[in-house]
Amino acid sequence: MGSYQNGVGGGERSATGVDKGVDFAQYFCTYAFLYHQKEMLSDRVRMDAYFNAIFQNKHHFQGKAVLDVGTGSGILAIWSAQAGARKVYAVEATKMSEHARALVKANNMEDVVEVIEGSMEEVTLPEKVDVIISEWMGYFLLRESMFDSVICARDRWLKPTGSMYPSHARMWMAPIRSGLADQKISDYEEAMDDWYHFTNETKTYYGVDMSVLAKPFSEEQKKYYLQTSLWNNLHPQQVIGTAAVVKEIDCLTATVSDILKLGSNFSSSITSENTRLCGFGGWFDVQFKGRSEDPAQQEIELTTAPSINNGTHWGQQVFLMHPPIRVSEGDDLNVSFLMNRSEENHRLMEVELGCEIKQNTGKLLPAFKKKFFIE
Amino acid sequence: MGSYQNGVGGGERSATGVDKGVDFAQYFCTYAFLYHQKEMLSDRVRMDAYFNAIFQNKHHFQGKAVLDVGTGSGILAIWSAQAGARKVYAVEATKMSEHARALVKANNMEDVVEVIEGSMEEVTLPEKVDVIISEWMGYFLLRESMFDSVICARDRWLKPTGSMYPSHARMWMAPIRSGLADQKISDYEEAMDDWYHFTNETKTYYGVDMSVLAKPFSEEQKKYYLQTSLWNNLHPQQVIGTAAVVKEIDCLTATVSDILKLGSNFSSSITSENTRLCGFGGWFDVQFKGRSEDPAQQEIELTTAPSINNGTHWGQQVFLMHPPIRVSEGDDLNVSFLMNRSEENHRLMEVELGCEIKQNTGKLLPAFKKKFFIE
Repeated sequence: MGSYQNGVGGGERSATGVDKGVDFAQYFCTYAFLYHQKEMLSDRVRMDAYFNAIFQNKHHFQGKAVLDVGTGSGILAIWSAQAGARKVYAVEATKMSEHARALVKANNMEDVVEVIEGSMEEVTLPEKVDVIISEWMGYFLLRESMFDSVICARDRWLKPTGSMYPSHARMWMAPIRSGLADQKISDYEEAMDDWYHFTNETKTYYGVDMSVLAKPFSEEQKKYYLQTSLWNNLHPQQVIGTAAVVKEIDCLTATVSDILKLGSNFSSSITSENTRLCGFGGWFDVQFKGRSEDPAQQEIELTTAPSINNGTHWGQQVFLMHPPIRVSEGDDLNVSFLMNRSEENHRLMEVELGCEIKQNTGKLLPAFKKKFFIE
Repeated sequence: MGSYQNGVGGGERSATGVDKGVDFAQYFCTYAFLYHQKEMLSDRVRMDAYFNAIFQNKHHFQGKAVLDVGTGSGILAIWSAQAGARKVYAVEATKMSEHARALVKANNMEDVVEVIEGSMEEVTLPEKVDVIISEWMGYFLLRESMFDSVICARDRWLKPTGSMYPSHARMWMAPIRSGLADQKISDYEEAMDDWYHFTNETKTYYGVDMSVLAKPFSEEQKKYYLQTSLWNNLHPQQVIGTAAVVKEIDCLTATVSDILKLGSNFSSSITSENTRLCGFGGWFDVQFKGRSEDPAQQEIELTTAPSINNGTHWGQQVFLMHPPIRVSEGDDLNVSFLMNRSEENHRLMEVELGCEIKQNTGKLLPAFKKKFFIE
């Protein structure tokens, strides 16, 4: 044996919901490293958005009780305190809580910020809060499913008059071109060539015929190379058609069932002349608007859209199709998007994308449907 | 957030032993991919050793009952059947069992080989067996702790007259030189430079002083860059002194407590003129000798020692020291080696290495002791 370090995760299916041990091992451990906190704290777009949201809307924090869900290093809790909060409860499931506590103390906020180590679903606070702040967004917004914990926190601990930071979120999709489409097909083909070479050798040298495994091997490689969405830092020029919102979330009212399974049909018009439709790019933005009775003085937006100068660590998720399809300006796409949580791991997602193309000549191309995994 | 894919594993401490859910998620999933099976099946040194061990010792298999612990793709079970076994029980904990079953059928061995999906600790066989065969070796032999399952299988299912395949195992260590030593120190220093830059920026732009986290960050990075053993494919010329056996295992009699915690003092003489002692390399070999009353007709050995032409996927584990120490031919090393399982994950290891150097001039250098993690 000799298992490969950094092996592919997975997780056993659980009929009864989340297995906490598995979840902890697979998910939370990453966030227990200062190195990963540093990466997130170095994301200037992310940092500026939260910083401005808090300090340009101090009236939401002054004299208030705040809950920070998944505080990590504690930065949002400290900013909330610096903006005048009376009390900040900073909940963190990992041992990062100890570093957060040290940071709070070093920044002279220990009278205001209380770091609580525990899972949000299980902790008890001494009071209801005026503001829930959290940086819960995963790749393509919902990967990691951390918003579940924010919903739970809101339903248990937010005053009826309280605000959510952020208050709104949106998921976007747009048609793209990408050189990765060819690369992935060629990676897949190379893996299959290797396989045939391997099975030949095994038969010749060791007398065992492995050809019966060609099909499952091919399926495994197809999933890995062709059906798994990829992290990407798209150049805006790679977006070849109009972008559409596929999901809007009001953080004050959304329920878990709203995000468990989501679907949308959207249209997009190709805006580039004579190019290749290689797939779709997905990203998100969140807004800090306060609540309607008590709005933000300055509305702040954090967007992870393709950008030359304002990229984020979230990048975009790309869903590649193969082979690419030649399209041109004025072609209309009719896209169906369906996203579910993976049965194997509730923090991962499965996506079904259907697409119809009506060319600007009026000709309708054959519709197609593809399944993808966000891993 | 936006957690990094292929995040570092970990696992929560369990006072009551192995958490099966966590263990499954962290360990077994890797072996459920045909891709990984293919990598192991492409290791010619590994394949040849098992192939020769079986087919040059057919008398151990003809008409016998065989148990294959962790059969994976089923190759050892099929070979055992091809060598004349009456019955082979092929136990596999992952869904790879389904592929193994297909492979057994495609190679016309379904009357002989029975693939059983389950953990070795829990399955029940209808009879005791004459031979237990298994490829249980992890990095530096014991990483993964899979030999525990082989011991359990042996104690429950091997006849008193039965044989183990392999029958013996040894762990080796030798002093080495390696350019990785300088590289890791420089990686660590770069990480710390980044950190100071990062904390300056965070203080200036966002008003939060992170300097209190410099020490834990440095410890995290030291562990990652300087105290974690590395997979390496050493050139034989990088071995600069005599190699020593630090552990011998008789697979027929070893107990879990023999491998839970092991220690050894060994000597090594530097054999290279004027070079740098950068640390130690560790590897293993296993032998197929049968049992004393019923020995192998052909003793076969599988070694993972540094080699130009016969490298294995196991490579060697290197334990680097910093800074390196200048040594020369005839210098004598007195080394103490201690290895324990990690408390966080019983499949990983912690190593303590102590070293005294007596120069060929008779001068004794100051002794030192280092802790390492096999991850």
